[in-house]
Amino acid sequence: MANTDTVSVRVFSLNCWGIHYLTKHCHERFTMIGEMLCKEEHDIVLLQEVWSEKDYLSLKKKLACSHPHSHYFKSGVIGSGLAIFSKHRIHDTFIYRYSLNGYPYMTHHGDWFGGKAVGMAILNIGSLIANVYVTHLHAEYCREKDSYLPHRVVQAWELQQFVRNTSVGADVVILGGDLNMHPQDLGSRLLRSYTGLRDSYLETAQFDGCENGMTLIADNLFINKKDLVPFEKGIRIDYVLFKGSSKTNVYCDSMSTTKGSVPGHPFPYSDHEALTVELRMESHTPPEAGRHKQSKDQDSAAEKVAELVNTVTEARTEVKVGLHCAERMRYTATRTGVMGLALLFLELAIAAVPWLALGAEQPFPRTSFYLLAALCFAILVTTSLLYIFYTMELKSLQEAEDEMRLALGSLQERLRGFPLAQAHNCSPEAQEPIAFEPEE
Amino acid sequence: MANTDTVSVRVFSLNCWGIHYLTKHCHERFTMIGEMLCKEEHDIVLLQEVWSEKDYLSLKKKLACSHPHSHYFKSGVIGSGLAIFSKHRIHDTFIYRYSLNGYPYMTHHGDWFGGKAVGMAILNIGSLIANVYVTHLHAEYCREKDSYLPHRVVQAWELQQFVRNTSVGADVVILGGDLNMHPQDLGSRLLRSYTGLRDSYLETAQFDGCENGMTLIADNLFINKKDLVPFEKGIRIDYVLFKGSSKTNVYCDSMSTTKGSVPGHPFPYSDHEALTVELRMESHTPPEAGRHKQSKDQDSAAEKVAELVNTVTEARTEVKVGLHCAERMRYTATRTGVMGLALLFLELAIAAVPWLALGAEQPFPRTSFYLLAALCFAILVTTSLLYIFYTMELKSLQEAEDEMRLALGSLQERLRGFPLAQAHNCSPEAQEPIAFEPEE
Repeated sequence: MANTDTVSVRVFSLNCWGIHYLTKHCHERFTMIGEMLCKEEHDIVLLQEVWSEKDYLSLKKKLACSHPHSHYFKSGVIGSGLAIFSKHRIHDTFIYRYSLNGYPYMTHHGDWFGGKAVGMAILNIGSLIANVYVTHLHAEYCREKDSYLPHRVVQAWELQQFVRNTSVGADVVILGGDLNMHPQDLGSRLLRSYTGLRDSYLETAQFDGCENGMTLIADNLFINKKDLVPFEKGIRIDYVLFKGSSKTNVYCDSMSTTKGSVPGHPFPYSDHEALTVELRMESHTPPEAGRHKQSKDQDSAAEKVAELVNTVTEARTEVKVGLHCAERMRYTATRTGVMGLALLFLELAIAAVPWLALGAEQPFPRTSFYLLAALCFAILVTTSLLYIFYTMELKSLQEAEDEMRLALGSLQERLRGFPLAQAHNCSPEAQEPIAFEPEE
Repeated sequence: MANTDTVSVRVFSLNCWGIHYLTKHCHERFTMIGEMLCKEEHDIVLLQEVWSEKDYLSLKKKLACSHPHSHYFKSGVIGSGLAIFSKHRIHDTFIYRYSLNGYPYMTHHGDWFGGKAVGMAILNIGSLIANVYVTHLHAEYCREKDSYLPHRVVQAWELQQFVRNTSVGADVVILGGDLNMHPQDLGSRLLRSYTGLRDSYLETAQFDGCENGMTLIADNLFINKKDLVPFEKGIRIDYVLFKGSSKTNVYCDSMSTTKGSVPGHPFPYSDHEALTVELRMESHTPPEAGRHKQSKDQDSAAEKVAELVNTVTEARTEVKVGLHCAERMRYTATRTGVMGLALLFLELAIAAVPWLALGAEQPFPRTSFYLLAALCFAILVTTSLLYIFYTMELKSLQEAEDEMRLALGSLQERLRGFPLAQAHNCSPEAQEPIAFEPEE
């Protein structure tokens, strides 16, 4: 019989809603969070929306004994808001900043300034190598008319690429964060099916928390119930996902969420609920993995590839919609810029012609002249900046679409059963649906 | 005896200098490049500075038979300029855009608009998985006073992170491109020593090309000799780097460069010289790798870690210099913005007070009033944009510095001989200096 070695870890994830002066009781809530984390002593703490570095530093100070290792991921104008605290030594960190993240002029949404990203930390848990990811995707402000959907889909695409390509050597992969997507949303499906990551809420043996694992609930004091419509009770948008490897099986023994209030405190930690997940990792010697691999159902694998082809096709369509919108926006910016330029020339002509031809007194009222000129300049500068921004958006969307097209070609070839050698993102575990294996 | 299986590949790399209307004979040179590539039939072609998508598409059409698989990496405003053509099927592509890449207002340099990045393609060569990277780093415009050095060092840092973390499952790693760094420059050393990538010029069994492997030479028709001073003969800034894995040894059998002219043509392919490298890959069964591993010199490994500690420390110092500069620039922008605002208030006060107090005629000449107000607004808008840009630059520099500090801690702990479990970027090959191995 193969040797087995079992380790358990407790993982915590919370969107801290940490915007000073804008979110309620921010300082007090961070104090509560710090005290709770210090007491609970989770192995890995994944935080989002820690927008102020001061809050991170005060948490770091408070958790110096319980979580001696930490990293705060910096990005964008305000910072990515992502932080990780760990009992286990962090050997390496790496940040991937999403290429698309809203629009700078949507200041009331503010996502662009946050520089959304995925942060990775490599740590050792016992003898196992764990790749831990923390992320926060662009918010969904209006589900019916979600203008940020292409951006979020591209973020989900880049997230799965990053996780898939950087986690090959890991025994355990853990991803936590606020994905701002419902479980059956396109981006969620894309992420789970391409990476083989499993949802701890669906996998857990024991669950204690909100109905349907919801993490944004009507019962939370900070939630405006109107914002949740048409999901009166709440939605599930925060996740802890995980997977093992050929040498390690991972099981979710228990999962819990906070339930909108904290006993002994007048308000909850955040407007999101916190997740706590207990994972059990069993490492085994390769022979067992070999048997496991042989018993794998080829039909089921083909089915999963077919499902992935559909999901990627759907994502590609969404990116194409985004491309169409960005092209239209760039066209509008260009047209407005040209009109501004034309207006400026017209103004100069009106002012100059009588003066040149007749040597007469300036017919244009000075005030109007300068105001109009300033307006034209403002239009030109603004539209130039917008043109640059939309061009960059287009390039990112095109790149994602190209990558999706190439990936689809590769997946379809696999579906048709042509021999394809093993791509290195493979793992022989059954939970890995998209393993490219040598077909010998 | 272990089984061995040998495959050879020919890799080509060229910075194409493809800026239409600005670079000489651009169209003709791309025609020449296309014809040569079609004839030479290299396995992998890595191109940089293909700034126009039209040029990529015409190359793609021309190389449809010889190189059926290709990808053009899109990024920034103009595009990353990176392209890959391959005889072997590309399964997956991924782009990492460098977080720092010059300044948008340095339009005469233009690097910012290029959206410099590293592109990755995963392909199968026979039964081997090859991770192929193509990149182009920020140019060096003045070696004595190189204001872009911190940006290039951060790019080199991000490049090594990306390569190291995404290539774990690969049998062969090949990186080609214009690094804009001399072989002994900080960024080059950082990249080679952290990733274990080997320089084909230093490793090749046979060499036919320019003296010292130079790729930007005085003998090239397009080169202004004054720009090369103090390196009269030229410099080496284009590379093909490679490494194997625990299952594959890689050898460089031959390397050649163009020599400033192309026989039968009136001008060279580009202002850079092209590199052609022939790599031989020998895969072997793990037992041999095991023996190889055991024979590894522990002292030499420690020496290499010590050297890496020095290199990362040096890089960290350079990033700190960049941080200091960015902070100063942001301070200047803030101060100028505040002065613009003060000037605006002053103007409004001068204009309003007599009018309010005395009900007198407006004493401020209208023309001056509007011109001054427009100037104040222009100052405010410009400094606000600069403030946002410098803050983002600061965040990226801080992130790189934090990552370096964390990596240094991990490396130093390893140097002190404390038990550290195996980080997954390890490879037991001797050319891998920074393998974290279990110390049992």
